[in-house]
Amino acid sequence: MHSGTQFTQGLRLAMDNGPAWTVEAVRQVRYHVVSSDHLFSPDNTTLLTGCPDAPLRAGERRLVVIDENVDALYGARIRAFFAHHDIAVTVLALRADETVKQFDAVSRVVDAMNDFGIDRRREPVIAIGGGVLTDIVGFAASLYRRGTPYIRIPTTLIGLVDAGVGVKTGVNYDTGKNRLGTYAAATATFLDRSFLRSLDLRHISNGLAEILKMALIRSEELFELLERSGPAVRADRFQGSTGELARAADAIVAESIHLMLEELQPNLWESALERCVDYGHTFSPTIEMHALPELLHGEAVVIDMALTTALGALRGDVSQGQADRIFSVIRALGLPLWNEVLEDPSLLEAALRDTVRHRDGRQRLPLPVGIGRHRFVNDVDPAELRAAAQLLRGRAQGATQDAPAEALVGA
Amino acid sequence: MHSGTQFTQGLRLAMDNGPAWTVEAVRQVRYHVVSSDHLFSPDNTTLLTGCPDAPLRAGERRLVVIDENVDALYGARIRAFFAHHDIAVTVLALRADETVKQFDAVSRVVDAMNDFGIDRRREPVIAIGGGVLTDIVGFAASLYRRGTPYIRIPTTLIGLVDAGVGVKTGVNYDTGKNRLGTYAAATATFLDRSFLRSLDLRHISNGLAEILKMALIRSEELFELLERSGPAVRADRFQGSTGELARAADAIVAESIHLMLEELQPNLWESALERCVDYGHTFSPTIEMHALPELLHGEAVVIDMALTTALGALRGDVSQGQADRIFSVIRALGLPLWNEVLEDPSLLEAALRDTVRHRDGRQRLPLPVGIGRHRFVNDVDPAELRAAAQLLRGRAQGATQDAPAEALVGA
Ligand SMILES: NC(=O)c1ccc[n+]([C@@H]2O[C@H](COP(=O)([O-])OP(=O)(O)OC[C@H]3O[C@@H](n4cnc5c(N)ncnc54)[C@H](O)[C@@H]3O)[C@@H](O)[C@H]2O)c1
Ligand SMILES: NC(=O)c1ccc[n+]([C@@H]2O[C@H](COP(=O)([O-])OP(=O)(O)OC[C@H]3O[C@@H](n4cnc5c(N)ncnc54)[C@H](O)[C@@H]3O)[C@@H](O)[C@H]2O)c1
Ligand SMILES: [Zn+2]
Ligand SMILES: [Zn+2]
Repeated sequence: MHSGTQFTQGLRLAMDNGPAWTVEAVRQVRYHVVSSDHLFSPDNTTLLTGCPDAPLRAGERRLVVIDENVDALYGARIRAFFAHHDIAVTVLALRADETVKQFDAVSRVVDAMNDFGIDRRREPVIAIGGGVLTDIVGFAASLYRRGTPYIRIPTTLIGLVDAGVGVKTGVNYDTGKNRLGTYAAATATFLDRSFLRSLDLRHISNGLAEILKMALIRSEELFELLERSGPAVRADRFQGSTGELARAADAIVAESIHLMLEELQPNLWESALERCVDYGHTFSPTIEMHALPELLHGEAVVIDMALTTALGALRGDVSQGQADRIFSVIRALGLPLWNEVLEDPSLLEAALRDTVRHRDGRQRLPLPVGIGRHRFVNDVDPAELRAAAQLLRGRAQGATQDAPAEALVGA
Repeated sequence: MHSGTQFTQGLRLAMDNGPAWTVEAVRQVRYHVVSSDHLFSPDNTTLLTGCPDAPLRAGERRLVVIDENVDALYGARIRAFFAHHDIAVTVLALRADETVKQFDAVSRVVDAMNDFGIDRRREPVIAIGGGVLTDIVGFAASLYRRGTPYIRIPTTLIGLVDAGVGVKTGVNYDTGKNRLGTYAAATATFLDRSFLRSLDLRHISNGLAEILKMALIRSEELFELLERSGPAVRADRFQGSTGELARAADAIVAESIHLMLEELQPNLWESALERCVDYGHTFSPTIEMHALPELLHGEAVVIDMALTTALGALRGDVSQGQADRIFSVIRALGLPLWNEVLEDPSLLEAALRDTVRHRDGRQRLPLPVGIGRHRFVNDVDPAELRAAAQLLRGRAQGATQDAPAEALVGA
């Protein structure tokens, strides 16, 4: 931690034709991400005292918003936990999948906050669910009276390593993915891997795609860990059934989150345009949208990463051997290498143009350099994209011979 | 301006039972409030070059969202201005009054931003209208892609001295006034008094209520200016028809804004609970809601101020003579002293309880001390409120003999 000195605050008045004021102010943000398995086991007090900024005391009350699927699986246990600690909870169970990630769902949370008569200084809303649920609740809380604190308890792997640890909230609008949203940190996120035991493998793989992203751009060590233990940890759903699986699961999650937070912290409001965490997210929005509902987010991201790995290989930044290792790991994690959306070169070009528009006129495309490093480029052209897609298609077809079929194409 | 040193940023990792991270970051905010009369006169270049952070160049394009009443009066002139400077504008004219200040209106602005294909780095949305319009557009812009810059051009007195110079955006939700919103500064606000020429006197008075608020808590000088010139400046709608009226109008607006910004700047996100700018806003939300649609916001605020002036008089903080001067100025500015809502003591008590709930358990009530100063109290009780209401009723009835009837009661 260090103190900043480059900030200015105050009020300046200049008299030109008339008075002109400049207002400068500085906002300090702080949030916590705390790991604890079996959060709702009655003797675990992490939720009560684990975060200095969000104490929860016997006799208090809370509004809990929970994904209805999670409620069906864990609701009784969660209610028993709060009752045991003498916390009166009002529970709103919400359907929370991508199709209902709209402002209507935000309204329902706002209604619940109104009905609860929430005290926005003392009663943070508690959100329990996947990325859809925590994005919706975070959005609602951030708008309610211009900001009411909230707490996140992610229950999916994407939630644990990505949606639950950053500061972005939001919902889709029209065809625009996360078109409306805010930057609003949850006071605390509590990470409990044990929720993953009921998550289907496809959603485990979906989260592994974001972990692989961090590995490819930032850490050869994490990549090797995924290469060595990823498939077994996946099959075990991160439950740590043996000592070795526990160590590997812990290391994968902790390392991935740490790398992610290292990238987010200096750029919490995304003012910097060159963001390596955007790796895999250049072509994926277009791929995801066009293949909807065939592909999950992480599946689209991994196809983008495979394509840009091929780009890197064509440029000589990634060796043939490295590219092969990357493609193998993708398949071994139950993720696709290819989607037929890539057959249409005009889509990829449109995705690139869109990126340029949102990155202030330049591509600023993170591309892999070897395994674990990256650089930003601005000169990818349509011909190169087509060549990369062709290279990838060959690899994906070749792979059909030695990998389980489900791992090759999305769906 | 001074540099802050009390801020911390960085990432801290602690290992307890599992890893726990603390993320700290600091956000710098800056915005401008620039005065210029006749903004849309073809040779006025303030909109193009008047704000260093929001340059507007020939050949560029902008989305303009305008109050439909303002559009009817000034739309042709505004379009001609942009055409003259070779700015291609797309104009969305919106109905913008309190009854439509709902999320639906925000949706309409978002739709327009989508259709325009706004470049959120280079194309701030321009909002032209009263407080309702600028609150709606500011809200929409702050949500769009988690923050798109916007520019405000207020056209009402409330807009010029209050809604247009702070950082709050929002809409009503259900019965909750401004229940949903964000803190999002407009990059620039351009103040043009000439819009007020078409504003009806009641809305001029409405804005004068907020100016009077600043005077009562912060500046005897501003109060004396209102006492001396307020009624004439009001009748002149701040147009400066004579040199003296111009000087008075300039001074009233500039001084009121300056005091307001002095209060806002150190507390932009309202983390401090004792806010003197909340003066007049303790009982007024309840009064406003119960008298709806009879009272405008400023009218409810002024009744609250009259009531709390009476409280101050009962406490000996405000002398009899000072209270009389305050009541006279209120009437002379065309504002009410009384509303029958005050007959019901339980409403006032409910308002006080609500305030305590939103100010973390204490009243933190700003009360006038003399004219131009204030203090915060926590010990107002129901009996005292009833006594103050009674005192005020006597004064309001007595006043009927020497003041124009329209100025005495809201409606
Ligand atoms: N805010 C951010 O920074 C950020 C980052 C990444 C992704 N996201 C968002 O996250 C969303 C994707 O999140 P997700 O992948 O968690 O999907 P999700 O929230 O849709 O959850 C996936 C499915 O799993 C179910 N589920 C959740 N927890 C479960 C459990 N423990 N056991 C069994 N089933 C469970 C859900 O009901 C849902 O059907 C997207 O909308 C994306 O935009 C946000
Ligand atoms: N964001 C803030 O900090 C803040 C502060 C104070 C008030 N507000 C909000 O502002 C709103 C009140 O604003 P307001 O008083 O400007 O009301 P308003 O926006 O409703 O405008 C009042 C009326 O005047 C019309 N009008 C606007 N400009 C005109 C002009 N130049 N000539 C003729 N008619 C004109 C409008 O169409 C409307 O009918 C409230 O919703 C309140 O919550 C916000
Ligand atoms: Zn992602
Ligand atoms: Zn007000």
